[in-house]
Amino acid sequence: MQVAETVLDLAEALIACPSVTPAAGLVFDCLEAQLAPLGFAVHRAVTGEAPDGPVENLFAIRQGPPGSRHFAFAGHVDVVPPGEGWTSAPFAPERRGDLLHGRGAVDMKGAIAAMVAAVRDIPTDAGTLSFIITGDEEGPAKYGTVALIEHMRSVGAIPDLCLVGEPTSSARLGDVMKIGRRGSVNIWIDVEGTQGHVAYPHLADNPAPKLVALLAELDALVLDEGTDWFQASNLEITQIAIDNPATNVIPAKASARVSIRFNDLHTGEGLAARVAEIAARHDGTTRAVISGEAFLTLPGEFSRLVSEAIEVETSLVPEASTSGGTSDARFLRALCPVIEFGLSNATMHKRDEAVAIADLEVLARIYRRVADAALGD
Amino acid sequence: MQVAETVLDLAEALIACPSVTPAAGLVFDCLEAQLAPLGFAVHRAVTGEAPDGPVENLFAIRQGPPGSRHFAFAGHVDVVPPGEGWTSAPFAPERRGDLLHGRGAVDMKGAIAAMVAAVRDIPTDAGTLSFIITGDEEGPAKYGTVALIEHMRSVGAIPDLCLVGEPTSSARLGDVMKIGRRGSVNIWIDVEGTQGHVAYPHLADNPAPKLVALLAELDALVLDEGTDWFQASNLEITQIAIDNPATNVIPAKASARVSIRFNDLHTGEGLAARVAEIAARHDGTTRAVISGEAFLTLPGEFSRLVSEAIEVETSLVPEASTSGGTSDARFLRALCPVIEFGLSNATMHKRDEAVAIADLEVLARIYRRVADAALGD
Repeated sequence: MQVAETVLDLAEALIACPSVTPAAGLVFDCLEAQLAPLGFAVHRAVTGEAPDGPVENLFAIRQGPPGSRHFAFAGHVDVVPPGEGWTSAPFAPERRGDLLHGRGAVDMKGAIAAMVAAVRDIPTDAGTLSFIITGDEEGPAKYGTVALIEHMRSVGAIPDLCLVGEPTSSARLGDVMKIGRRGSVNIWIDVEGTQGHVAYPHLADNPAPKLVALLAELDALVLDEGTDWFQASNLEITQIAIDNPATNVIPAKASARVSIRFNDLHTGEGLAARVAEIAARHDGTTRAVISGEAFLTLPGEFSRLVSEAIEVETSLVPEASTSGGTSDARFLRALCPVIEFGLSNATMHKRDEAVAIADLEVLARIYRRVADAALGD
Repeated sequence: MQVAETVLDLAEALIACPSVTPAAGLVFDCLEAQLAPLGFAVHRAVTGEAPDGPVENLFAIRQGPPGSRHFAFAGHVDVVPPGEGWTSAPFAPERRGDLLHGRGAVDMKGAIAAMVAAVRDIPTDAGTLSFIITGDEEGPAKYGTVALIEHMRSVGAIPDLCLVGEPTSSARLGDVMKIGRRGSVNIWIDVEGTQGHVAYPHLADNPAPKLVALLAELDALVLDEGTDWFQASNLEITQIAIDNPATNVIPAKASARVSIRFNDLHTGEGLAARVAEIAARHDGTTRAVISGEAFLTLPGEFSRLVSEAIEVETSLVPEASTSGGTSDARFLRALCPVIEFGLSNATMHKRDEAVAIADLEVLARIYRRVADAALGD
């Protein structure tokens, strides 16, 4: 493969590699072909088993002088399925006016192209640079960044700072960066009863009213009022199920699922225990899966240098946000302070995903400034 | 076909005709072959279209002298599916000790055999006798007894009294008869919302909490405290559904179904309106299907003669009950006073359904006494 000349060329090359989650093979070949000539040692590995694997990941590192700082870019090359109704083929990148169209243009192959462009001219003696790139961020993410972190620990490659290239910008490139994310826990609730005929309710034990009372209590919970950096934690009922086609049958079981997005006043485990305790009072049992704990990179040196890089290139002072869904920053935070900044998210996960071509170049310059400052330029 | 010699023979002959609801053909041939030699004019018709039809029904009548009273037996020859685990073939009647085993033994081929045996020796000049026999009582019943009633009206065959042979007896033959039934209405409830991501609840409108509040309000309703003849009306939540496999998605729609069994203080329409009004306050819409209104044959001449017939043969004074599910009496009540009395219901709808052979003979004698008294003997 050829080395792409511009950030736009590279973004196109990456988009042209179909990589619906989990990504493997071609898209990593493409990225490796860009990084290896820049002096990066590229480690690729396939990890995990069905149903949440196998997953391909890539860790590339270029060592600086002994004792120098280590700055990491992190991201993913997998994309969500394109769906129907595109005006151009989702994996055939197409320039139309000021925009580059294609699945992954903003989430986040465009950002990865900008990262590569950013490091191209950084001299080796400036410090250690690395790329933490997973093929499974949009999927279950069980064998994605988690496996990469395991590898990095095993080879002693722990960055001092890490920037995740998720599309954090909102109305304009540069208006929002993320200094934290809420945690996320999903909780499955079952209430068992005794099946029976609706005409003989005294011989049955309907679990539905218990589940209804349970869910009403959960819905009424006020988890907190938010913090200086986080909005209030929030619980949503995302599913209720009673499998009972017969109109004259009292069902044997009623189930529900709730999703809690929580700030750093809580832990996933604490919330799971709280829901379990409420459920138990209504004869319910629970099973919780914690997708990630809340994290916060408190405003300070790192956020200042990212903000300054953005302001120089865009004249915008980014909002330091903690809103939105989870990202792989929830894992990377275990290594070092993490901030997320990337392209505008208006078209992410939608049909006709597109990036402003000019934004790709501006983002590459911002990333260059961040890397320079992070390495102690 | 041969005319069965005894009530047991006839019960066996009927059970040997597989007739999982809706019944057609063979089982009606068998019944017709018994009734025609007794002087009954047999009318059979197939009515209705998919999905709730076609359905075969039989109306047999033996006219008495002009101006004589008209007494009708009513019942069904369809049976519920046998299911698994029988110790003998469900449609191969088997005598074991005191019992006759087979699907329909008590619900209600045994009772139909007893009806036929009961009328065998009633002289023609005693009055008009008829059999109102449907092939769809256990199914949707849209084209069953309803179609029979239409036919009877069209030929001017309106009975003065009608006995339905449902298995009303509980611990012993004769302990319970039914003088009424509660009505039944099923109501489907939908709450529409706006789908969204759980991380951005302000951009969505979750219908689940509204449905939960709605159902909690319905569950808390006290419809009444019962009457002299009826137990309290009762509402059961029989289904809740939110079709949403994704843990991070706020669903667009939440649905539920409730079933109300109600006494004669209510109408199906009134209850449907009440639920619709509550649903509307929670942004819900409803669709109601009334299976049947409540009915009551007030204790009087008819219940007294049935009770006396039972007492003479069993030494039991039957409880005049209105409990349990619906039956075709909900339709027949439009023609004349209706009472239900039949075999013990312990094994109805279960595997290894069985009737005490002695009960078949006792029931035939009770039915004979009822018919005699009803015709004004």
